[in-house]
Amino acid sequence: MDPRIKNIRSKLIEENLDGFLLSLPANISYLTKYPSRDSYYLVSPKNNFYFTDSRYTEEAKNALRGSASIIKTNGSVFKMIADVSLKSHLKRIAFEERHLPFAEYQEIKRGLGRKAKLIPTHSLTEKLRCLKETQEVAKIKKAINITSKALDFAKKVISPGKKEIEIVAELERYIRYLGASNSAFDIIVASGPNSSFPHHISGNRKIKNGEPLLIDIGVDFLGYKSDLTRVFFLGRISSSVREVYDIVCSAQKEAIRRIKPQEIIGKIDKAARQYISSKGYGGFFGHNLGHGIGLEIHEEPQISSKNSGLLNTSMVFTIEPGIYLPNKFGIRIEDVVLVTEKGCEVLSASIHK
Amino acid sequence: MDPRIKNIRSKLIEENLDGFLLSLPANISYLTKYPSRDSYYLVSPKNNFYFTDSRYTEEAKNALRGSASIIKTNGSVFKMIADVSLKSHLKRIAFEERHLPFAEYQEIKRGLGRKAKLIPTHSLTEKLRCLKETQEVAKIKKAINITSKALDFAKKVISPGKKEIEIVAELERYIRYLGASNSAFDIIVASGPNSSFPHHISGNRKIKNGEPLLIDIGVDFLGYKSDLTRVFFLGRISSSVREVYDIVCSAQKEAIRRIKPQEIIGKIDKAARQYISSKGYGGFFGHNLGHGIGLEIHEEPQISSKNSGLLNTSMVFTIEPGIYLPNKFGIRIEDVVLVTEKGCEVLSASIHK
Repeated sequence: MDPRIKNIRSKLIEENLDGFLLSLPANISYLTKYPSRDSYYLVSPKNNFYFTDSRYTEEAKNALRGSASIIKTNGSVFKMIADVSLKSHLKRIAFEERHLPFAEYQEIKRGLGRKAKLIPTHSLTEKLRCLKETQEVAKIKKAINITSKALDFAKKVISPGKKEIEIVAELERYIRYLGASNSAFDIIVASGPNSSFPHHISGNRKIKNGEPLLIDIGVDFLGYKSDLTRVFFLGRISSSVREVYDIVCSAQKEAIRRIKPQEIIGKIDKAARQYISSKGYGGFFGHNLGHGIGLEIHEEPQISSKNSGLLNTSMVFTIEPGIYLPNKFGIRIEDVVLVTEKGCEVLSASIHK
Repeated sequence: MDPRIKNIRSKLIEENLDGFLLSLPANISYLTKYPSRDSYYLVSPKNNFYFTDSRYTEEAKNALRGSASIIKTNGSVFKMIADVSLKSHLKRIAFEERHLPFAEYQEIKRGLGRKAKLIPTHSLTEKLRCLKETQEVAKIKKAINITSKALDFAKKVISPGKKEIEIVAELERYIRYLGASNSAFDIIVASGPNSSFPHHISGNRKIKNGEPLLIDIGVDFLGYKSDLTRVFFLGRISSSVREVYDIVCSAQKEAIRRIKPQEIIGKIDKAARQYISSKGYGGFFGHNLGHGIGLEIHEEPQISSKNSGLLNTSMVFTIEPGIYLPNKFGIRIEDVVLVTEKGCEVLSASIHK
């Protein structure tokens, strides 16, 4: 049996559950090792069931041969899920409370009647996904490698007068020639004052000399994501931008050097945050320091000051401090790290800062 | 007051509701006329509240000036939603049952205690969005226009030996130079047997002579989407492919000529489906005939044989019959139509079939 399915089944036994309905595509993709879309996945002690519609059944049959029964949905998938659960004599069926809409929960519950119970759970699969296997790290590294090349390419494309969206266009093309199947999110190219919006939507603003240009880019390689941010400068960098840039760089170092197994996650965020505050920019770094990355662009662990969990070997996440000065400019530097036995490896270390 | 907000507030009064919590980004974008991300929106009889985190608050303040209070979330947004609801003395708060996860529902409910009630609703906003305003149709037309040019461009790029993903790369670049902010979904370039998977993931397969090449592409123009499919042929078309192609074309015509206000939606789907069945390919057209399109790539109305609703002037949707022969090839032709007083206008009519 596949070790991932084995792990999930052990978890179910631990929690006194005999079925597990998954609805988050990334969790389904993780357990099936197949890029799942528009599907539900039911894990039971003996069999697994993959529910999808006619658009995907042929593909799924080829991909999941032997590991799950493919059930072609027609009419209400929720009624079908309930029927299959009852036929399999499941009694206590876990579901993903953060990923199942209220209406779907109600419909499945109605279908089960009194014969079986839906039990809310969260992070059952996410906790497994947190700790990356060697082959998962290899895919993330490849995604980072493509992104790194794309950032090098960006340097050649950037010139005053070009629109932000035109840089996005060139990057979207380039990454696919390097083997990415897609960008991992809308690539952000934010020029001048637009960089003060952490999630700027790239548009028609033309790049100017003497302004910072922020590029936040990630790609998808065989389902695994990368996520990196660099700030470029055209022409002369003003001393105020330089100062903020150096502070963000140092804040990132402060965080990275504290990363090691068994460290409290919140402390990593606080290390960067306190450094930025000590330099007088505490009010201008609003978001979390980072986030886990893998099959999803944002996954566990959240690198937030409130996270009291512990770091563990094989976790992969971003470290991305930022300072955003409204109507002026913003600086964010984002790298991806892998927690190792002795500390961490910065997977994107080769990309110039 | 904005007419959209006015419409929603009238609906609330009709349904004896005094608050409405929106969680679907497209619905929030519709009511705020702002490309909403990672937010919740609470409409109340007197005020509206827009909940988002520090990444978007500056942007939202500029965009929503006067129409909503921006509430910067920190900690649990659900607790904050409950608090604001109670402070505004709301008693019966509608929520989107298909778009609010079970856990979020529970958390808001807990926050409200016994002082207010959450009422499940669906399609309140979607029903309004179904009927497109003139300026919305204009944006969809522009998105279609860009897509049309991209399909012309594709013809120039396609050549034997090119990989599917390379065609995607060129299209992803090209649409942004024409004014699209993004593709509306992962562009599908499916060559030869890959075209038999309705939602093929474009990959490294090389295009060959004598095979059909299916391209399904849509773009985002100021938030509005297009969605079009054409099949190209390199070299000689085999007679079996030609036959299927002609059947799909005729099936589409059968459906389109029936489109008019007050027609039962299911009949449109059935017209195409029955035509395909009459030619012996009934088992090879699994998906619905079409779907509404606008702020979302798939929205109401669903053009499904089970939809007993009526067509109405100003609805915009796709008509996309297909025949998929496993391990051989698939043909789909997809256009976008606007229901008019007399029948319909095929918004993508100028694109060669």
